[in-house]
Amino acid sequence: MADRYQRFASTGPGRLLVRRLGLPNPVPLRRHRPGDPLVPAPVLVGGGGRVTDAVHAALRSARVDTRSTPESDARYGALVLDATSIVDSRGLRALYDFFHPVVRGLTSCGRLIVIGTPPDQCDDSREATAQRAVEGFVRSMGKELRRGSTAQLVTVSVGAEHAVESTLRFLLSGRSAYVSGQVVRIDPVGAVPEVDWDRPLAGRTALVTGASRGIGAAIAEVLGRDGAHVVCLDVPAQGQDLSAVANRVGGSALQLDITADHAPGRLAEHLRDRHDGVDIVVHNAGITRDRTLAKMTEAQWDSVLAVNLTAQERLNDALLGADVLRRGGRVIGVSSIAGIAGNVGQANYATSKAGVIGMVRSLAPVLAARDVTINAVAPGFIETRMTAAIPLFLREAGRRMNSMSQGGLPVDVAETVAWFANPASTGVNGNVVRVCGQSLLGA
Amino acid sequence: MADRYQRFASTGPGRLLVRRLGLPNPVPLRRHRPGDPLVPAPVLVGGGGRVTDAVHAALRSARVDTRSTPESDARYGALVLDATSIVDSRGLRALYDFFHPVVRGLTSCGRLIVIGTPPDQCDDSREATAQRAVEGFVRSMGKELRRGSTAQLVTVSVGAEHAVESTLRFLLSGRSAYVSGQVVRIDPVGAVPEVDWDRPLAGRTALVTGASRGIGAAIAEVLGRDGAHVVCLDVPAQGQDLSAVANRVGGSALQLDITADHAPGRLAEHLRDRHDGVDIVVHNAGITRDRTLAKMTEAQWDSVLAVNLTAQERLNDALLGADVLRRGGRVIGVSSIAGIAGNVGQANYATSKAGVIGMVRSLAPVLAARDVTINAVAPGFIETRMTAAIPLFLREAGRRMNSMSQGGLPVDVAETVAWFANPASTGVNGNVVRVCGQSLLGA
Repeated sequence: MADRYQRFASTGPGRLLVRRLGLPNPVPLRRHRPGDPLVPAPVLVGGGGRVTDAVHAALRSARVDTRSTPESDARYGALVLDATSIVDSRGLRALYDFFHPVVRGLTSCGRLIVIGTPPDQCDDSREATAQRAVEGFVRSMGKELRRGSTAQLVTVSVGAEHAVESTLRFLLSGRSAYVSGQVVRIDPVGAVPEVDWDRPLAGRTALVTGASRGIGAAIAEVLGRDGAHVVCLDVPAQGQDLSAVANRVGGSALQLDITADHAPGRLAEHLRDRHDGVDIVVHNAGITRDRTLAKMTEAQWDSVLAVNLTAQERLNDALLGADVLRRGGRVIGVSSIAGIAGNVGQANYATSKAGVIGMVRSLAPVLAARDVTINAVAPGFIETRMTAAIPLFLREAGRRMNSMSQGGLPVDVAETVAWFANPASTGVNGNVVRVCGQSLLGA
Repeated sequence: MADRYQRFASTGPGRLLVRRLGLPNPVPLRRHRPGDPLVPAPVLVGGGGRVTDAVHAALRSARVDTRSTPESDARYGALVLDATSIVDSRGLRALYDFFHPVVRGLTSCGRLIVIGTPPDQCDDSREATAQRAVEGFVRSMGKELRRGSTAQLVTVSVGAEHAVESTLRFLLSGRSAYVSGQVVRIDPVGAVPEVDWDRPLAGRTALVTGASRGIGAAIAEVLGRDGAHVVCLDVPAQGQDLSAVANRVGGSALQLDITADHAPGRLAEHLRDRHDGVDIVVHNAGITRDRTLAKMTEAQWDSVLAVNLTAQERLNDALLGADVLRRGGRVIGVSSIAGIAGNVGQANYATSKAGVIGMVRSLAPVLAARDVTINAVAPGFIETRMTAAIPLFLREAGRRMNSMSQGGLPVDVAETVAWFANPASTGVNGNVVRVCGQSLLGA
């Protein structure tokens, strides 16, 4: 899991070499620590569209030092533009006018956030064109900023303005350290629940599959830190690691093979009888059986699809059918860049992970009617035991080919899951958010 | 424009070195020459969903040698699976069952095509999930196939089955040499016009902006070859090159700065008075003014947005408003991978090219009501004078980082435009198709 290059590049001689040779220069990312301010420097807010008031209200609630007038030579922790007032391509000049004079003042690990309108919600083609154009701007800025800074587009539907706080807090904070170049959509909802931002999941029960190690263990830890009781699930063979994680997070362990015929029924029963239902379901369990299709066995195809996709569908049906998933519930899937872009030797895995995207998109409107959301993370190169086993050259390529010039950590995926899980994220539904440092790879 | 590496790799010692060192191995791509058969080897068709009959009819019409029963050790020019009968994740096994035994038999520059249902048209979440999963499969296969072969997903809405022929012909033929890993959508339409497949644009008038060189000149040539009278437009400063292209394609030249205030009116007048209207409008004119945002001047922002986006919108309004664009018309935009993924130093360009995507998506339903379609190509690394000026290292990275291990040619973009322009492509609307050899880059 060690990124020796990053450690070397931060030494004196390392820094010199990196600069002279134009090598990748990964900076230590700002990550969330309890008690830290949301943003370590003032935030400049501009624009003046229909979301501006809600942005200011959210920043006040988060006790962020907010400025509305740019000052030359000032340093900013984040630059936020409400671009919802842009209604045609000429109006896009507002992007240049706001960011050009101040972008150099962004601190290391800074945040560039543009608020827009989803193109399909626009009044006419001119507005939809301009709003879609903003995405090209944001993705370019994500690649230009460097020094650990991120750029995001948050599209807010009309009627969803009051639902932006959980998303703004996530994106401004160190919790989104390895999330960049993403488009997040917030849809209209009723009242947004009040939450204790230090323990937003207090009183909630969360299920995490594949929780015995790696990304699953990190998800269990972060949900536990945020106040949830976490039911940690994994196959019996992982029983020992699983118990250790459950103990560490003050949760409970459940040994179950989710692909077994009886698994959905047994799980629903367990959650209903022992926990009176469940609020958060994280479908993290996943396996790989890499082989090119010509050499792949039937078993390799079947097992990957069964664990990564079919089991999730069966669990969803059981938990939704028996009303074990409570109102206000959260279903969270784990997709992958391979599911977006495809990958050599992973036709089975990519099919299953593209299916997760399909599951999120198709269930989102259905679940919204029950006050439940479904979203997914799509991790890129995350430093785990799995990636540590990749041959050096490929590993280095995967690590460096992104806007952060480094791999992410399991906690980066976990924090993104926790944002989806937050009761205040009720307008965040049907999103697939990459946790990839804005990897170059895509579709 | 020379790809010296590709030439070297095809020599005896070059082949040896490439094999021993595991270097990229670009094969000469199969490109369309008049009189060539559509596919140089038999095509295997499988599946048996609702589009299978239409696929067989299209292949018969194109005089393709079609097989329905796989034979071991047979060589196939294309493998086509109708996957519309897959209704849940378990059914995805049909992908493995069909392709696994025969994928090795695909010839060099072969074609893998899966026909699916657009997820938003599916009956339930299970079917939508499975149909979306197919995309991950196809993108993986595009990366696995090598030797110049391509993989595509064609999603056919219910009621659009009879409209697949122009798309199948394009994707099977050498016209789609540099198109891979794409998802094409065909929507329901009325009767599909009969066309002479050797001169599908006979009797039509096409306008191509930026036609004096590079990709624009190639588009003018291919549309002319397909029978259209081409009005070649460019700025007065390009007058000499423009006349040469117009003469070569038997078309006419029109010198006009499309960003001028009077340009839309003058163009509409010209097309109405001289040509009695226009059938095909290709918005190819585009400029770059690369600079990071912090160093970009106002003029650099404004000029790129004006030429690449605002001018297109104004021309569309003028041509549609005055009914200069005829029924059955085609509007075709040119986006870019930079518009999809963003790019360092191209915030202005990426914004404009993302805007083109927004224009296509938002105008498609509006224009469908007038029997007009709008689509766009998004070129990746295309060998032109522009890319020849890129520094060696970046140029080589751009050329090799795709499933073809080589750059595309202007004619590859032009053939894709000609497919959109085809009167039989009436169900192809609102698509953005990359011509990038399945570049690794994306969003």
